[in-house]
Amino acid sequence: MDAYRALEKRFTRLSAVNDAIGILDWDSQTMMPAGAAAGRAEQTATLRVIAHELLTDPHLGDQLGEAETTGGLEPWQAANLREMRRLYLHATAVPADLVDAASRTASACEMAWRSAKPASDFDGLRPLLQAVLDTQREIAAAKAAALGCGPYDALLDAYEPAGRSAEIAAVFDDLAIFLVDFLPRVLDYQASRPAVLPLSGPFDLEAQRQLGLLAMRAIGFDFQRGRLDVSLHPFCGGAEQDVRLTTRYEEDNFTRALMGVMHETGHALYEQGRPETWRGQPVGAARGMAMHESQSLIVEMQAGRGRAFLGFLAPVAAATFGGAGPAWTADNLARIFTQVRRSLIRVDADEVTYPAHVILRFRLEKAMIEGDLALADLPGAWNDGMAALLGVVPPDHRRGCLQDIHWPGGAWGYFPTYTLGAMIAAQLFDTAQGAEPDLVASLGRGDFSPLRRWLERHVHAQGSFYPTPALLTEATGRPLDVAVFKRHLERRYLDA
Amino acid sequence: MDAYRALEKRFTRLSAVNDAIGILDWDSQTMMPAGAAAGRAEQTATLRVIAHELLTDPHLGDQLGEAETTGGLEPWQAANLREMRRLYLHATAVPADLVDAASRTASACEMAWRSAKPASDFDGLRPLLQAVLDTQREIAAAKAAALGCGPYDALLDAYEPAGRSAEIAAVFDDLAIFLVDFLPRVLDYQASRPAVLPLSGPFDLEAQRQLGLLAMRAIGFDFQRGRLDVSLHPFCGGAEQDVRLTTRYEEDNFTRALMGVMHETGHALYEQGRPETWRGQPVGAARGMAMHESQSLIVEMQAGRGRAFLGFLAPVAAATFGGAGPAWTADNLARIFTQVRRSLIRVDADEVTYPAHVILRFRLEKAMIEGDLALADLPGAWNDGMAALLGVVPPDHRRGCLQDIHWPGGAWGYFPTYTLGAMIAAQLFDTAQGAEPDLVASLGRGDFSPLRRWLERHVHAQGSFYPTPALLTEATGRPLDVAVFKRHLERRYLDA
Repeated sequence: MDAYRALEKRFTRLSAVNDAIGILDWDSQTMMPAGAAAGRAEQTATLRVIAHELLTDPHLGDQLGEAETTGGLEPWQAANLREMRRLYLHATAVPADLVDAASRTASACEMAWRSAKPASDFDGLRPLLQAVLDTQREIAAAKAAALGCGPYDALLDAYEPAGRSAEIAAVFDDLAIFLVDFLPRVLDYQASRPAVLPLSGPFDLEAQRQLGLLAMRAIGFDFQRGRLDVSLHPFCGGAEQDVRLTTRYEEDNFTRALMGVMHETGHALYEQGRPETWRGQPVGAARGMAMHESQSLIVEMQAGRGRAFLGFLAPVAAATFGGAGPAWTADNLARIFTQVRRSLIRVDADEVTYPAHVILRFRLEKAMIEGDLALADLPGAWNDGMAALLGVVPPDHRRGCLQDIHWPGGAWGYFPTYTLGAMIAAQLFDTAQGAEPDLVASLGRGDFSPLRRWLERHVHAQGSFYPTPALLTEATGRPLDVAVFKRHLERRYLDA
Repeated sequence: MDAYRALEKRFTRLSAVNDAIGILDWDSQTMMPAGAAAGRAEQTATLRVIAHELLTDPHLGDQLGEAETTGGLEPWQAANLREMRRLYLHATAVPADLVDAASRTASACEMAWRSAKPASDFDGLRPLLQAVLDTQREIAAAKAAALGCGPYDALLDAYEPAGRSAEIAAVFDDLAIFLVDFLPRVLDYQASRPAVLPLSGPFDLEAQRQLGLLAMRAIGFDFQRGRLDVSLHPFCGGAEQDVRLTTRYEEDNFTRALMGVMHETGHALYEQGRPETWRGQPVGAARGMAMHESQSLIVEMQAGRGRAFLGFLAPVAAATFGGAGPAWTADNLARIFTQVRRSLIRVDADEVTYPAHVILRFRLEKAMIEGDLALADLPGAWNDGMAALLGVVPPDHRRGCLQDIHWPGGAWGYFPTYTLGAMIAAQLFDTAQGAEPDLVASLGRGDFSPLRRWLERHVHAQGSFYPTPALLTEATGRPLDVAVFKRHLERRYLDA
């Protein structure tokens, strides 16, 4: 037990350093004066090096080996040890100079992307993007050897532990076939329905903030352990027990900020609901990015854009902004919140087309990491994929393969978690509805507590005790079932 | 040179960790939700342990020894090495378990003090305060051995490097004799002058904030590298290149917050003016707390409450709050800002009585550290000292020896820096006026730039290159001269 106890102590320290980084990152996007950027970069880089040193210390490897052979652990301790080993493997699999090279190439490429994107200059960015891809492929090879999996799965594992791209590909292929048929049917159906009445602003920014705070309270955000602020790019960050989420307000549209706040609040509930007794320990952390995204989407998409909650929201929103008339009814709000379009841009995409964007990126990044697609062929492959999946072709790279920060920024293997999260959200919501008969009626009163309680018990408080598939099976009685997501889409978008 | 270069690298890392702590501390007093306090304490404690480990690493001792014997350093590098040695001595002089005990007794005592103070319960607090005193005496003995000085000086050294209490005692005795005679003369003189006309509020808080920002801009605060926020206890903190200062607004009085902002802005200018090329290095840091306090007092007391600047401020303040009439003239503002009273409370004291409060505390804490005054005898000694120095006796301990956080919180040896700072401020301002003929006239236009430029060159950009006495002599041509401070008081408070 000594070795295990020493490991817990070490990871408590690591968690404190990572929490400090989380608050500093939040600060740099919300509060920090511009001239402090260089100093802040130095601070967070130093803390990241310290965290990396804590995690690659040879003593840690010895202690892991000793704790693993000694045994005698309770189930949660054993799961904690398993997660420690995983983190250690990821940290030690990649040589320090490759970690450094990856960080530098990604920084340089992301910086260049900020101007290459508006200029649609794929050829200009290509050398830097190739350098990022090359280092990612090296990292993938190193991690694949350590983890005993394929190179793409080795990258995926950092975001979705033990995720397997072969299984994801099968599910995504199934979903892609469904969507190609489904999308035109939805568009036809929506064209046959009453037109969407626009909500006209301007919408006072302070009123928008108040409405967001009201939604957060309704959802159950604990303001004793978190805050809402403003940043250019909304996110949910901060530290354990101190969850900081952000949004961005626009005067001519309040729905984007409102749904954004609800989305981030879903992430925040997960963080706030992590198991108390495992604070600072790997097993107490949230279970991967797919499950995390499921928590934001269950709040935003499953509950937030559902007819019941919009029945509560419509009069509140009307009172907040002094709106009146048919545009402010729950019916019209529902039409606004479920409008489907053949879109070019992922982040602006609706619930129906978003998975197609993700499936395309998953296929392309997997092919590039595995050497089956050259970077020079990316634009063509992108446009072919868009035509096949969404029936539109980007007129330029800005609205095509240059639109996302992920690849220039070095986040390869992340994309599939968005749509895995959407499917998991549908499945969890479906089960929760059955288990909590009052759930939907409560949403109609702006009360998320039955949903929240169910999620707390079955997801949040489970931390990283189970791998994702087992967690989903424990919660819903079965593994990932794409049929539930399809049924959700059919009900919502075809009134079927 | 290799050893010296390695030391610079090590101290750059230490500085980044300390800067991170600075931002986290700022956050905990301005932004942090209440429920995050325990986690934050864990984060900052962890980073402080990491900083302490960096500073007590045996390799550091070896590198210091090697760099010191090798020589061949430029003067600023040599001064940097001298400061590194000083920090290393302080960090290694005290055994780890004593550091830990001091931190724990001070935390416990400070916590108990928060309720003992309002209850005037000296006897109740005494056991915990005794424990703090005991650990401070142990630390003093350990540091005295390492630094080769007396025990009180060893504590003082942490705040005022190389400060010597024998010299301070001589200056303070001189000043005390002056003040005992001076105070009744000032009170008589002020009684013979036109009565102070009160400014009546309420004063809009946002207007107060705008006035504070205006003053900060006038003084020359760089908002690209700092911010102004609100906290319960105002302070100037943050990081190098990211100076965060705070204030607290009261609806019925705008002058306290305004003068507080100007005071903290004086501290901030010092931080923002540190030498660029020595960023992250000990020699680039501000030169001790006495010099730091001089920078806040030169802005608040010497310039801010001077007749010239008040001539600028009066119409601006009147316009800000819609004030009019004789209460809003510069003459009346000057009377408000220089009102003298026999006060019981240090933090509310005026420029004339403040030094008496400090001299009392200096004498008492020195006697307690050196074993010449038992804690049980503190209340009596306090009241005797108040009667002798200020002619008033506290009716209870709340307004007596329990009023300050310093002793319960473990900051022994800090008090004298307040009045050393006041004297240095007077001397610097006197010299600056002579060197910059336009300085006072500029303050009358709300323009601090001649003063700021002079301070930047002669104080801020000097970092810790010189010890304090040498820095003062370089700047003003002579060592600390209490006569300059006395003359300042006579001019301002007796129109002499």
